[in-house]
Amino acid sequence: MFLTRTEYDRGVNTFSPEGRLFQVEYAIEAIKLGSTAIGLKTKDGVVLAVEKRVTSPLLEPSSVEKIMEIDEHVGCAMSGLIADARTLVEHARVETQNHRFSYGEPMTVESTTQAICDLALRFGEGEEESMSRPFGVSLLIAGHDENGPSLYYTDPSGTFWQCNAKAIGSGSEGADSSLQEQFNKELTLQEAETIALSILKQVMEEKVTPNNVDIAKVAPNYHLYTPAEVEAVIGRL
Amino acid sequence: MFLTRTEYDRGVNTFSPEGRLFQVEYAIEAIKLGSTAIGLKTKDGVVLAVEKRVTSPLLEPSSVEKIMEIDEHVGCAMSGLIADARTLVEHARVETQNHRFSYGEPMTVESTTQAICDLALRFGEGEEESMSRPFGVSLLIAGHDENGPSLYYTDPSGTFWQCNAKAIGSGSEGADSSLQEQFNKELTLQEAETIALSILKQVMEEKVTPNNVDIAKVAPNYHLYTPAEVEAVIGRL
Amino acid sequence: MFLTRTEYDRGVNTFSPEGRLFQVEYAIEAIKLGSTAIGLKTKDGVVLAVEKRVTSPLLEPSSVEKIMEIDEHVGCAMSGLIADARTLVEHARVETQNHRFSYGEPMTVESTTQAICDLALRFGEGEEESMSRPFGVSLLIAGHDENGPSLYYTDPSGTFWQCNAKAIGSGSEGADSSLQEQFNKELTLQEAETIALSILKQVMEEKVTPNNVDIAKVAPNYHLYTPAEVEAVIGRL
Amino acid sequence: MFLTRTEYDRGVNTFSPEGRLFQVEYAIEAIKLGSTAIGLKTKDGVVLAVEKRVTSPLLEPSSVEKIMEIDEHVGCAMSGLIADARTLVEHARVETQNHRFSYGEPMTVESTTQAICDLALRFGEGEEESMSRPFGVSLLIAGHDENGPSLYYTDPSGTFWQCNAKAIGSGSEGADSSLQEQFNKELTLQEAETIALSILKQVMEEKVTPNNVDIAKVAPNYHLYTPAEVEAVIGRL
Amino acid sequence: MFLTRTEYDRGVNTFSPEGRLFQVEYAIEAIKLGSTAIGLKTKDGVVLAVEKRVTSPLLEPSSVEKIMEIDEHVGCAMSGLIADARTLVEHARVETQNHRFSYGEPMTVESTTQAICDLALRFGEGEEESMSRPFGVSLLIAGHDENGPSLYYTDPSGTFWQCNAKAIGSGSEGADSSLQEQFNKELTLQEAETIALSILKQVMEEKVTPNNVDIAKVAPNYHLYTPAEVEAVIGRL
Amino acid sequence: MFLTRTEYDRGVNTFSPEGRLFQVEYAIEAIKLGSTAIGLKTKDGVVLAVEKRVTSPLLEPSSVEKIMEIDEHVGCAMSGLIADARTLVEHARVETQNHRFSYGEPMTVESTTQAICDLALRFGEGEEESMSRPFGVSLLIAGHDENGPSLYYTDPSGTFWQCNAKAIGSGSEGADSSLQEQFNKELTLQEAETIALSILKQVMEEKVTPNNVDIAKVAPNYHLYTPAEVEAVIGRL
Amino acid sequence: MFLTRTEYDRGVNTFSPEGRLFQVEYAIEAIKLGSTAIGLKTKDGVVLAVEKRVTSPLLEPSSVEKIMEIDEHVGCAMSGLIADARTLVEHARVETQNHRFSYGEPMTVESTTQAICDLALRFGEGEEESMSRPFGVSLLIAGHDENGPSLYYTDPSGTFWQCNAKAIGSGSEGADSSLQEQFNKELTLQEAETIALSILKQVMEEKVTPNNVDIAKVAPNYHLYTPAEVEAVIGRL
Repeated sequence: MFLTRTEYDRGVNTFSPEGRLFQVEYAIEAIKLGSTAIGLKTKDGVVLAVEKRVTSPLLEPSSVEKIMEIDEHVGCAMSGLIADARTLVEHARVETQNHRFSYGEPMTVESTTQAICDLALRFGEGEEESMSRPFGVSLLIAGHDENGPSLYYTDPSGTFWQCNAKAIGSGSEGADSSLQEQFNKELTLQEAETIALSILKQVMEEKVTPNNVDIAKVAPNYHLYTPAEVEAVIGRL
Repeated sequence: MFLTRTEYDRGVNTFSPEGRLFQVEYAIEAIKLGSTAIGLKTKDGVVLAVEKRVTSPLLEPSSVEKIMEIDEHVGCAMSGLIADARTLVEHARVETQNHRFSYGEPMTVESTTQAICDLALRFGEGEEESMSRPFGVSLLIAGHDENGPSLYYTDPSGTFWQCNAKAIGSGSEGADSSLQEQFNKELTLQEAETIALSILKQVMEEKVTPNNVDIAKVAPNYHLYTPAEVEAVIGRL
Repeated sequence: MFLTRTEYDRGVNTFSPEGRLFQVEYAIEAIKLGSTAIGLKTKDGVVLAVEKRVTSPLLEPSSVEKIMEIDEHVGCAMSGLIADARTLVEHARVETQNHRFSYGEPMTVESTTQAICDLALRFGEGEEESMSRPFGVSLLIAGHDENGPSLYYTDPSGTFWQCNAKAIGSGSEGADSSLQEQFNKELTLQEAETIALSILKQVMEEKVTPNNVDIAKVAPNYHLYTPAEVEAVIGRL
Repeated sequence: MFLTRTEYDRGVNTFSPEGRLFQVEYAIEAIKLGSTAIGLKTKDGVVLAVEKRVTSPLLEPSSVEKIMEIDEHVGCAMSGLIADARTLVEHARVETQNHRFSYGEPMTVESTTQAICDLALRFGEGEEESMSRPFGVSLLIAGHDENGPSLYYTDPSGTFWQCNAKAIGSGSEGADSSLQEQFNKELTLQEAETIALSILKQVMEEKVTPNNVDIAKVAPNYHLYTPAEVEAVIGRL
Repeated sequence: MFLTRTEYDRGVNTFSPEGRLFQVEYAIEAIKLGSTAIGLKTKDGVVLAVEKRVTSPLLEPSSVEKIMEIDEHVGCAMSGLIADARTLVEHARVETQNHRFSYGEPMTVESTTQAICDLALRFGEGEEESMSRPFGVSLLIAGHDENGPSLYYTDPSGTFWQCNAKAIGSGSEGADSSLQEQFNKELTLQEAETIALSILKQVMEEKVTPNNVDIAKVAPNYHLYTPAEVEAVIGRL
Repeated sequence: MFLTRTEYDRGVNTFSPEGRLFQVEYAIEAIKLGSTAIGLKTKDGVVLAVEKRVTSPLLEPSSVEKIMEIDEHVGCAMSGLIADARTLVEHARVETQNHRFSYGEPMTVESTTQAICDLALRFGEGEEESMSRPFGVSLLIAGHDENGPSLYYTDPSGTFWQCNAKAIGSGSEGADSSLQEQFNKELTLQEAETIALSILKQVMEEKVTPNNVDIAKVAPNYHLYTPAEVEAVIGRL
Repeated sequence: MFLTRTEYDRGVNTFSPEGRLFQVEYAIEAIKLGSTAIGLKTKDGVVLAVEKRVTSPLLEPSSVEKIMEIDEHVGCAMSGLIADARTLVEHARVETQNHRFSYGEPMTVESTTQAICDLALRFGEGEEESMSRPFGVSLLIAGHDENGPSLYYTDPSGTFWQCNAKAIGSGSEGADSSLQEQFNKELTLQEAETIALSILKQVMEEKVTPNNVDIAKVAPNYHLYTPAEVEAVIGRL
């Protein structure tokens, strides 16, 4: 059975006899190898938290960026190939800036997410910004616009969903279960921070420190926590 | 026999010795994996109903969009790859808007459907808007124009048919039989809503709620039902 | 022997050692799977008749279009992939309209047929209107011009022939024999209608009704029969 | 040995280890499957004669065109894929018309032949008018210019030769032997007609009639014989 | 297992079933064949040191350049394919010069690194400056900007990390361990020089001389050590 | 061993593990199948002689052109695929005419040869005038310029050499030996004619006549011998 | 093991699992089949010497050019595919002329070498001047600029090194050893000539004559030795 698979994925973007797109499914595997990221939406804003996997004590922890700002009112956490994520984020930054310039107002969070997915969908097409393979990354996009706070989850197929809470990466299965148990719509931002970090702690194999996790919120503006702010959340666990 | 198939689908858009286009057939398989969608035409308008498959309680049900507006007088339900459907819908939205702008009147429902199928047909051609593989999605296009209400069904080969009623997706076989039994030309819109939802209920594995189904009508304008309106239909079952 | 075939058809448009073009031959197979269509030329005009294969009672029979107008004085019946036929017909419509616009007179039926075959021949060339594979459709092109009525038959290789009568599709073999027996140059249009329908009836597996056949004539203008007119012909059988 | 061949012809235009171009050789096979055509040069003009292979009594014999005019002073007979031949002839017609327009005089027969071969040679190059495979057709080009009458023979490799007489197609081997026996430089046009048709008669499996052969001459202008003129030649056999 | 790998790397930039990009992993193998390079960041500046592998006494040691200046305030050491590195460095030189010209100030070290990685990421895309394969080189980018000294490490996937110290190339494993033992944030530049060279000495198979190592610092400007300066560092070992 | 070859020549222009370019070597095989051609340089000019292989008595011998004029002062003899040679000669004719037009003087023979080889070298590059495979032809280019008479020999790899005498084609091996024995720098043009033809006679399987050989000289202008002039040389044998 | 190689070199420019670029390695094999070339740098200038391999006494020795001028102050010797070398030299000639025109001064020898390697590196990229395969040639580039005399060695990977002395081609191994023994920095030009030729003599299988070797110097201008000058060097052996 494995053998017949190999026949299909050489055509980058073709269907298998069962109606599957293997390159997209393989890209999703790349994300299962990635570090865990968690997003939680509260009525006051959205919290993002990621495991950083600093593989050597000589690495500068702040340079392992797995949460990035897209615009003043939108940020994202990622899992999978970081270089791919950077391309998507860079694309989204240009789109949101163009929108501000053309319309004098921020792009909605959904339109920002759609712009990212449009690029992700069209791999293998030989177009200017697209890749010859799927982007091997999932994003948790946190934002705040005229509809209030929102959290989106994208996958390599170019599909997106709006969520109240979501985990991605190697520890996503356990983390999603924990999120379903602990999430409710009345959470405060501070409670969301604590839940996100406590769940991350469960799936990480080492002690949680300001060096190996990052936290950010969009409430209503994007803010990446300083080591001291992260330390404070750790202290509440 | 399976082995010889693998020889043909590597060329994305080529005939097999029996005169078949395997990539199109495989794309049709992708739709058989999709959620069920139902369309019914009445003399007063068209009703669309879809199963939403909200896979996690943390997903925002309203973000699982499987019914979309194309123009004021046209909407569609979909089954298969949602990201592919979005591309087709976006293409149709541009076409209908251009038509309004150029001719000062809405595009007919048939022309809208044809525009979608033109794009779907030409996969593998390397053209600007086309894909390198078939679009893995079927649409039920509901509209209302100078010829009254109409319902079209498209498949990945770029072919379309006009129907009185039609089901697509994983539960389409059973749903189509039920539709043939229950459809008649004198149905009111309200009766059509009830039939669509009762059939959807049969093919879904869980209880029907405003969270896991969507209903829309074009009568004569597109309208997506609010949760309260969906609840009302559920109440009539 | 089957194995060596598979070596050749991967190159879409290449010769096999015996000088054959397999993709064209496979496309011809696609037509053998199609519904039957019949054309008859009389001195007063040409009659086209097709089997419609309305697979579900919920399908709108009038939307299963297998006879289409190209210009006021030319129409065609088709068998094979309907979406492919639509592209050829659309191309011919533009060509005939351009001709009228440029020369102030209708395009001859032969030139119209040639224009369709030029497009059909050049598959696999990467040009703007061409396909990456042969068009999987045969056409019976009926027309009337300064040379009187004429009937052309095209195949996926881009070749065409002028005929007095011709059948295409899954029932073409038996239908062609019957046509040879029954055709003579003195037939009236009404006799041609009756012959076409009676032959179609033989090859169809179900009762002939205005819902599952279409009839058209070009005499000298294209006219698609109304259900009542079809009923009248059925009555004469 | 057959197996190694299949390795080479997938690259459309590449040499085999023995220095052969298999796609060209396979295209030549296509011609061996074609109907027989014969050309004879006399001091007064050139005669072309072809077998028409009217496969059905319902086919219009005059629409099976295997002799075509290129310009007033040049015509050609063909064997192989007729749709391919039409493309070459159409190209030659444009070239000869352009030459008349630019230089105010007819193109020489050799230049016309060279123009056809230039196009035939460059298959697989992805250029505008070229094909992705060799043209599967041989031509006998008959013409008359300031050098008097001439007859050229072209093959799918883009090579051409000037001849006194030549046969192509499935019966060419026997026909060429007969031509060598019967040809001499003092033949009159009428004698050439009779020789061409008598040789054609030998290689055809059915009785020769004005319906299944065509004859043309260039002396000094192109003229396709009417059925009555063909009948007259048949009468002389 | 090895066999299935070979199926995936023919598509230059595609995922394997496990979500891996083999061409990138193979390019990383190319670096493991390369000479060793070491970078150390101190509070006063960054030190780079490389093994030169002068394979013949007739080679001009100064022409074996494995440390290159990018801009006045940025330099890099490399391991892997030197010709590939030159392309990346040339690209970075143009980018930094353009930045100075457009904004009147030097490009930050991170932006310079990002520019290099953008180019590295997009291999196989057919774009103007990109390669058809991954760049087979890793860089240690040393720089000094408004944020003080910094050291970046890039790999063929287009990913980069900021480090305090890092070794690349065939001896990187042992060298990285030594760096972790000996690095501390209070090192002076001179101590860093000594550590870098002593570690290089351990992994090299021959005696360290000014001919077979190069040393450079960015403190705050790029400076490649003269043979005498290198000799002085050797003397301190 | 033969099997591994087949792996390499599918990539038209790639090296085998032994550093060979198989497509070029196979093209050279094509020339070994060609007719023999001979060139001899004397102090008074250059003589070219070729075997014509008139395969049928019905072929016009003068149309089998294997010696062609390039410019007034340059001509060439060829062996291999004649249609390929025509493309090279046509290219050279344009280049030499452009040179005359731009600089008011004839192109040197070496530059003419270089222009031909530039085109021959770049097969498989997808450029405008180049082929997708090597040109399957060798040329003997004879010319006369300010440096006096010269003779060049080109092969499918795009390499050229200047020679005093050279034979190409199926009989080249024996002919080259005879040339080495008989050539000396003091030969007169007439002696060169006789030597060329006597050697050609040895390698041909039939009697030499003005119909099956061609002779030309460049002394200092290109001149193709008339049948009478050829007969005269034959008479001297 | 050989089998797995064949899997990788079909993709012209891709890494093998061990991080190797096989097409480049195979191109290097092509050079090992080439004739031997030697370069020696002295304080007064650079000497180049090559074996010419005049395969037939009828070849004009002066037309076997394996040492070529690039600019007044730069020349090169080559080993491998001569037609490939011509393309590189032609490219370098244009670059150096453009430099002189734009900056009013000669290009440095290193920049000239870099320009050649930039072109060599980017094979398989489909760009205008690049090849679809590596250039199968190594160059010894001798030059003289403001830094005095210099000698560079390039290989098919696009890498270059500066050398005091270097041999390339089939006899390079033995010649390099001899060079290491005999080279010292105080050599005069005349001593360098003698050493180069005596080493060439060792690796050649025939007697050294002005016909089968070429010598050139750049001191400070390029000069190719006349036969008499070569004879003089031979006399000193």
